[in-house]
Amino acid sequence: MSGMWLKKKCMTKFTEEIKIGTIYTSDAFSYTQQDVNDFAKISGDNNPIHLDEDYASKSIFKRRIIHGYLGSSVFSKVFATDFPGEGTIYLKQDLKFLKPMFTDVNYTAKFTVLELNAEKHRALVKTEIFNAENSCIVAGEALIQNRKFL
Amino acid sequence: MSGMWLKKKCMTKFTEEIKIGTIYTSDAFSYTQQDVNDFAKISGDNNPIHLDEDYASKSIFKRRIIHGYLGSSVFSKVFATDFPGEGTIYLKQDLKFLKPMFTDVNYTAKFTVLELNAEKHRALVKTEIFNAENSCIVAGEALIQNRKFL
Repeated sequence: MSGMWLKKKCMTKFTEEIKIGTIYTSDAFSYTQQDVNDFAKISGDNNPIHLDEDYASKSIFKRRIIHGYLGSSVFSKVFATDFPGEGTIYLKQDLKFLKPMFTDVNYTAKFTVLELNAEKHRALVKTEIFNAENSCIVAGEALIQNRKFL
Repeated sequence: MSGMWLKKKCMTKFTEEIKIGTIYTSDAFSYTQQDVNDFAKISGDNNPIHLDEDYASKSIFKRRIIHGYLGSSVFSKVFATDFPGEGTIYLKQDLKFLKPMFTDVNYTAKFTVLELNAEKHRALVKTEIFNAENSCIVAGEALIQNRKFL
């Protein structure tokens, strides 16, 4: 079975061969305040900077911000469903929260393949979130494994 | 106002002075499959390894696992609410997903202060999740800022 055949059968959006330097850019995405409230409930992280408009208005951010973990979970989503796709196992992720993320704002995530290990089916991938003004909001690197696509 | 006074007024569990080498261990925590399903909805990460019992039973894990982002969000929760507590700003987090996390299993998170920068109110903290058998499940480091407690 070719990789291409597998890709058509499995959950993925990227059907080209993955090489060092390959770039994948996600669709625009955003989160609502309801997403933030729900994430606070699930995680137990009820930091008022994410939930309390009045508290947040007095902070350096001037308004409520999205949990870093929620905002950057787009990396996990894309790895699992789009690029490389189904079957991805997450081994490492580092995150630098450079700027705050806000609700109802469009962001895109960019993935750049830095290293490939075909034998171990692993890739080291630069992971970045950008806003519409092309400012980098979250930066980092991920190590992933996928036995079908890497 | 002393740091101690502030700590009593603000959301925190740790009321001792924070020094290099200080260790904070969280209460035991666990996640339910409902938490995992909810996180999949919010994040869009509907990887079947987290959701589909049948699919997961054929994987190397033999059962459904928790999203790495959800499992390790305990770091964000603790930093924001317990140690050091309210007002924490997350600057960096790196994560090594060493072993899978499962629902309805008790874990604890351990925090060890590695470096302190009083001028910038920052701390570099080793962050680890352990299971009841004391196996390290997630390891990493976080850089945080807190103008009240650091």
